[in-house]
Amino acid sequence: MDRNAPIGVFDSGVGGMTVAREIMRQMPEEKIVYFGDTARVPYGSKSKNTILKYSRQIVRFLMTKNVKAIVIACNTASAFALEEISKEIDIPIIGVIKPGAKVAADATHNGKIGVIGTEGTIRSGLYTKILKQFDENLEIIGKACPLFCPLVEEGMWHDSVTDEIARRYLEQLKKEEVDTLILGCTHYPLIRSTIRNIMGEGIQLVNPAYETAVSLRRILEWKDLTTEEHGNVKSQQYDFYVSDDPEKFQQFANSILPFEINKPQQINIEEF
Amino acid sequence: MDRNAPIGVFDSGVGGMTVAREIMRQMPEEKIVYFGDTARVPYGSKSKNTILKYSRQIVRFLMTKNVKAIVIACNTASAFALEEISKEIDIPIIGVIKPGAKVAADATHNGKIGVIGTEGTIRSGLYTKILKQFDENLEIIGKACPLFCPLVEEGMWHDSVTDEIARRYLEQLKKEEVDTLILGCTHYPLIRSTIRNIMGEGIQLVNPAYETAVSLRRILEWKDLTTEEHGNVKSQQYDFYVSDDPEKFQQFANSILPFEINKPQQINIEEF
Repeated sequence: MDRNAPIGVFDSGVGGMTVAREIMRQMPEEKIVYFGDTARVPYGSKSKNTILKYSRQIVRFLMTKNVKAIVIACNTASAFALEEISKEIDIPIIGVIKPGAKVAADATHNGKIGVIGTEGTIRSGLYTKILKQFDENLEIIGKACPLFCPLVEEGMWHDSVTDEIARRYLEQLKKEEVDTLILGCTHYPLIRSTIRNIMGEGIQLVNPAYETAVSLRRILEWKDLTTEEHGNVKSQQYDFYVSDDPEKFQQFANSILPFEINKPQQINIEEF
Repeated sequence: MDRNAPIGVFDSGVGGMTVAREIMRQMPEEKIVYFGDTARVPYGSKSKNTILKYSRQIVRFLMTKNVKAIVIACNTASAFALEEISKEIDIPIIGVIKPGAKVAADATHNGKIGVIGTEGTIRSGLYTKILKQFDENLEIIGKACPLFCPLVEEGMWHDSVTDEIARRYLEQLKKEEVDTLILGCTHYPLIRSTIRNIMGEGIQLVNPAYETAVSLRRILEWKDLTTEEHGNVKSQQYDFYVSDDPEKFQQFANSILPFEINKPQQINIEEF
């Protein structure tokens, strides 16, 4: 295994860029190959079998780029595909669910943890299953928030409509007095302040993007897979691939990164 | 050509069922094969090339069912794929844009027509192009309404949030004093009353689903392709295919039809 090879990161679209951004921050020397499945986005409302099929195609594509590890930077795909795919490949692969769950289990004082995510992520029950493995006495309240992604993608990060929808989605979690809330979809950190305002200062918000980058770093160190190359130029260090028109993706990526990315390349993911 | 063959109807997902429903109403003896691309929905935010590729796959699938005509029951796919595909096949194929545009051009008194639809439909400019062919003096104001589809799919047909979003989207069209408004996405007839409340009683709302069924009937009659079979049993007359889990589709279809549909069959559309 080439320790100077890139890390593969994929998501249904742009959301996983919040995870890629954390990896860039925490491991600035590492190369990244990012794939966003913009032709088939979103994943959150689709079935397990479909998401598993899509994830396998993407993993096969990333393998052609000789990645040394893969991060599933999408909660829905982590919930539906990580377990199966990790049996099928021989490089490290991690999802975003376990790292966030671990931190939440450690952080809670009253044992009541809220999880918000897409329909698929919540329906999978995987956050609950993993949290219970850390501590079976935890009480977990999951809530699907299907409109958050379209609102974030429309740029309505600070908007009265987003506030109103968030109030409805979060009402039950407030009532149940969770003291820790997992932002179980990669889009949600972008409306963190709205969620914070509604849930109040006393609640601990867990951002799995951050925790996933921490986990990844530990795994790469453990397996002697951290890069030995230094002083790479940012714009040449990151390659982006998408399944639909690259322009929209590029705009979004540039809006959340502190540098301009190279133009993403469009590929036909159905061929993999 | 077998005049008793079914009519093929397709959409990115469930929305096209509003078109299928009109065909069922106006031509109750005809058989229908419906395909909803639920694994890749939505189409509205994706590029022309991607939608053209998906539409070609679906047309190839419908051809295996020996359909006698095809209806593209999706505004985005009609905008991006109808022209090309109609050159590639030798059975009648119609979209939802021209029939709605024709009625709108006839209906307007002040020559100002509003068009609401997905990003893709509005960006394509096809409604404007076709309306101008009917009368080049028409003034057309297009407005993309990207949140309408997710709101409709969440069942928020009568909801203060949908009202608020609709007010924002429709504000400019009111200000410009359009007297005719085309509901240029198959989901929009389901929030017709919200749109009606905001636009006022004086505005003519054009539902392309209805007009498309009228056009289809004329074409089938003209080409002697209307069925000669009578007295079919509804539940056996309609076949539904989807690319993702059939259950959600079935629920939606049953909620808008006056009878229970057969369980849709899931197929792998990427193989076509």
